[in-house]
Amino acid sequence: MADLDSVLACLDLNLDRSVERLQDLLRIPSISTDPAYAPECRRAAEWLAGDLEAIGFRARVAETAGHPMVVARREGPAGSPHVLFYGHYDVQPVDPLDLWDADPFDPKVAAMPDGTRRITGRGSADDKGQLMTFVEACRAFIAETGGLPCSVTIFLEGEEESGSPSLLPFLDANRQELTADVALICDTNMWDRETPAISTGLRGLVGEEVTIRAASMDLHSGYFGGAAANPIRVLARILADLHDEEGRVTLPGFYDGVPDLPEDVRRVWDELPFSEQEFLGSVGLSVPAGERGRSVLEQTWSRPTAEVNGIEGGYTGKGFKTVIAAEAQAKVSFRLVFDQDPAAIRESFRAFVRERLPADCTAKFHEHGGSPAIQLPFDSPVLQTAREALSDEWPKPAVMIGMGGSIPVVGEFKRRLGMPSLLIGFGLGDDRIHSPNEKYEMTSFAKGQRSWARVLAALGEKGTG
Amino acid sequence: MADLDSVLACLDLNLDRSVERLQDLLRIPSISTDPAYAPECRRAAEWLAGDLEAIGFRARVAETAGHPMVVARREGPAGSPHVLFYGHYDVQPVDPLDLWDADPFDPKVAAMPDGTRRITGRGSADDKGQLMTFVEACRAFIAETGGLPCSVTIFLEGEEESGSPSLLPFLDANRQELTADVALICDTNMWDRETPAISTGLRGLVGEEVTIRAASMDLHSGYFGGAAANPIRVLARILADLHDEEGRVTLPGFYDGVPDLPEDVRRVWDELPFSEQEFLGSVGLSVPAGERGRSVLEQTWSRPTAEVNGIEGGYTGKGFKTVIAAEAQAKVSFRLVFDQDPAAIRESFRAFVRERLPADCTAKFHEHGGSPAIQLPFDSPVLQTAREALSDEWPKPAVMIGMGGSIPVVGEFKRRLGMPSLLIGFGLGDDRIHSPNEKYEMTSFAKGQRSWARVLAALGEKGTG
Repeated sequence: MADLDSVLACLDLNLDRSVERLQDLLRIPSISTDPAYAPECRRAAEWLAGDLEAIGFRARVAETAGHPMVVARREGPAGSPHVLFYGHYDVQPVDPLDLWDADPFDPKVAAMPDGTRRITGRGSADDKGQLMTFVEACRAFIAETGGLPCSVTIFLEGEEESGSPSLLPFLDANRQELTADVALICDTNMWDRETPAISTGLRGLVGEEVTIRAASMDLHSGYFGGAAANPIRVLARILADLHDEEGRVTLPGFYDGVPDLPEDVRRVWDELPFSEQEFLGSVGLSVPAGERGRSVLEQTWSRPTAEVNGIEGGYTGKGFKTVIAAEAQAKVSFRLVFDQDPAAIRESFRAFVRERLPADCTAKFHEHGGSPAIQLPFDSPVLQTAREALSDEWPKPAVMIGMGGSIPVVGEFKRRLGMPSLLIGFGLGDDRIHSPNEKYEMTSFAKGQRSWARVLAALGEKGTG
Repeated sequence: MADLDSVLACLDLNLDRSVERLQDLLRIPSISTDPAYAPECRRAAEWLAGDLEAIGFRARVAETAGHPMVVARREGPAGSPHVLFYGHYDVQPVDPLDLWDADPFDPKVAAMPDGTRRITGRGSADDKGQLMTFVEACRAFIAETGGLPCSVTIFLEGEEESGSPSLLPFLDANRQELTADVALICDTNMWDRETPAISTGLRGLVGEEVTIRAASMDLHSGYFGGAAANPIRVLARILADLHDEEGRVTLPGFYDGVPDLPEDVRRVWDELPFSEQEFLGSVGLSVPAGERGRSVLEQTWSRPTAEVNGIEGGYTGKGFKTVIAAEAQAKVSFRLVFDQDPAAIRESFRAFVRERLPADCTAKFHEHGGSPAIQLPFDSPVLQTAREALSDEWPKPAVMIGMGGSIPVVGEFKRRLGMPSLLIGFGLGDDRIHSPNEKYEMTSFAKGQRSWARVLAALGEKGTG
C-alpha cells in the first residue's frame, strides 16, 4: 500500500502536466470517418506511441488497411496477471461547427461558477481524456515504483467512431500479442459525479446506409409532379414503417433473441438512484419516446432500437427549389441486445426496404459495421476486485449497470480472444460526446487516473481469477 | 406582310449575333434563391436594361426589397394594342455541380449527331433563352421597320425561382405602368419539336419548409436511443402520412375546389399525341406514380400534388455517426389546380403537422410563396389570333394544352391587373430545366424569335379584343 500511496501522490502532484499532455493530444483532429483527416489520425497514433515509449513501454504504430493501431507492452513482476487496456484515439466529426462555443480542436481548461473545472474540446471525453487516465496511472506507477504491478498491454484503435473496419483482421493477426487475462476498457460513464460504475451489458450495433433512386435525373416538380416517383417520399414511407404505434420495431424477426429482463437484474436497476425526468430533462426532453410501458433504463440498456441517424435528399440549401430528386439517402442504425444476430437484422432490414419499393425505384445498401450485444456475468471475482478498488477512490461505492451504447471491441475480445472485459469509465452523462461542446470533468480526469492506479494495484495483488 | 417578311429575314440573318447576346446573359450566374448571388442578379438586370435601351426602349432597373425588376417601354402606333411581355432573368441553383458535363455558366453551342444544335448552360431554357426570343423579335422589328406594331412593355423579374417575394408589392405599386391589354409570357414548352403550344391552364403552388425539433442538442444514439424522440423519424412519419395508398393527398380539405376534368377538355387531351411511356421513359421511369386510375396528363395538368422537394437531418457526410439529431427539415410543395385556396392548404398542412407532433417535439414553419392555379378560357379571340400566328411558323398547328408547372405571376396579373395572359413558350420536355445540363434547342431560339415577330404583327393587325 505504500507503493500505491506514493503513486497516488505522484498523480496529484503532476495533474497539471497530465492536463497539458491531454491538451496536446486533443489538438490533433483525428476524425476517423472523414478520409481528409487520415494524416491527423496517424499523427495521433504516433503521438501516443511516442509518449508510451517515453514512459517505458515498448510501443509501435501498427499499420492496417485503415488508420493505424497503437500497441504497447510493459512486463510486470513474474507471475503477475496480464491486462490489456483498450481505448481509441479517433474522434467524432464536429459538425455543426457553428454550435460550438470555441474551436473543437483548441482545448481549454474552463472554471465553472461552482468551482469545478473541465477540459473542453472534441475527444476530451470520448475517448482521449479517458484513455489518458490509464496512461497517466502507468506513468506514475513506473516513475514511483520502477515498474507496473501487472503486465500491461495498451491497445489503442483509430477507427472506433467509424465502424472499426480494421479491428477484426488486426485481432486475428495479432491474437497472441493481444490476448491477456482481462481487458480494461475506459470508454464509458460513471453512474453520477460521486458514483463510479462498471458496465456489465452493452448494446450491439448494426449500421446501414440506404439510397433510394427513381428517375435518372432530378425532375421539375411542376412538369413531372403527380406522375413521377419521389425517392424522398418512398424513403419517408419506409422509415415510418420501421416502428409501430407502440414504438416497437416492425422488422420481421427483430425481437428474436430478446428476452424480457430477468427479475434480479430489474431489481438492481430499480434500486439505482435514477430520475427519468432529470435524464431526459438534461437534453430538453420530458417523455420517454421509445417502446411504451418500459422504463428509460430498460429502453436504453436492455431493449433494441432502430434509429435514423441521418437523412438527405433533394434541395436542402437556402430558399426553395421545386425539384423531385433522383435519389434520397438515410443512415439507419440498430442497437442490439442479448442474442440478436447483427447479420440477420441487416438482412431483415434490406428485405424490408426492398419489399416496399414501388415501381421504378431501386435501393442500394452500404454497410457501416455490425456487432452483437454483450452481457457480462455479475459474479466474477475480477469484477468484485475492481469494484472494491473503485469504491476506495470515490465518495460512493461502485455500481454495476447496463449501457445503451455499443463498444464492438468488447464482443470481439470475448469471441476472438476469449478475453472478458471490464468496462470502467469516468465520463458523465452531460459530457456531450458526439455533440458540440464536448467536455471532460477535471474530477473525471484526476480521479480517473487515481482509480486506475488502485485497480492496477488490486489486480496485481489479487489476480484476475 | 412585307414588313413581317423583312423582320423575319432580319432575324434569320442575325441569328449568330443573337446567340452571342444570349451567351453573354447566360454567363451571369443570377441564382436568385442564394443571397450570395445577389450582385449577379443585379448584373443580369442591368445587362438587360442596357440591351433594351440600346434597341430603343425606355428601360429602367427598378429597386425592390429583393432582386431588382427590369421595366422597359416602347410605344407602338396610335391606337395599337398594348402588350406586356413577362420573363425572368433569375435562374435555379446548379447543384449537384458534379453532374454537369461543363461549367453551367460557360454556355456553349453544341452540335448534335443528328445535325441539330443546342445552347447549353443554366438558364438557357429557363428563362433567359426564352425571354431573349421576344427581345430579339423587338430588336428586328425596330431595326427593319423603325418601330413595333404594338405598344410593348417588357417586365422582367429576378425572383421567379425563389418565390417572387417582391412581385406583389411591385405590381401594386406600378399597376398603371404594368397593366396592358394582354400579357405575353414565354416560360413554357412546345407540345413537341414541331408543334407549338399555348398553355391555357397552370397549376398553382404552395411552398413550405418545416423544421421538427426535439432535444436541445444532438444526442448519442447509444445513450439516448430508445428513450429520446428522433426528429427525423417524426418527420418521416408525417411525410409518409401525407398520401394514402391510392396516391391521394390526405390533408383535410385538400380536394375542395378540385372538380373532375370536364368531358370536353378530357376529349381534347385524349386526342393529343402523347405517350406516357415516352414521357416517363425520357427520365428513366415507366409507371405513373401518382393518383391511381388517372392518366399522366391528368396527373400533371389537372390534379393537385404534395411533394417533398428536399429533406435533411442528422449526419449526412461520409461514413457514419451514431447521432440522434436535434432537428430535421423538409421542403414541401403543393401543386394546386382549379379553385384550391393556397392559404387554406398552407394552414391545413401546418395543422396536419402539429396534430402529429409527439411529446417534446415542436414544428417551425417557413413560407416559400403561394399562388392559386389559373385556367384560361379556350374561346378568347386573342388566343385564336396567337394560335394562327404560331401555326404559320411551325410545321404543325399550335395546340392548346394544360401545364403542370406554376407561374404565379399569371394569377397575379389576372387578379391584380385584370390582365389575361398568353403563355407561349418554345422549351422542350428534355431541356432539363432545374437539372444539370440544361439546354435550349437552336430551333427553339431561332423559330421562337420568328414566332414572336408573327404574334406581334398579328396582334398589331387584329388587336387583342
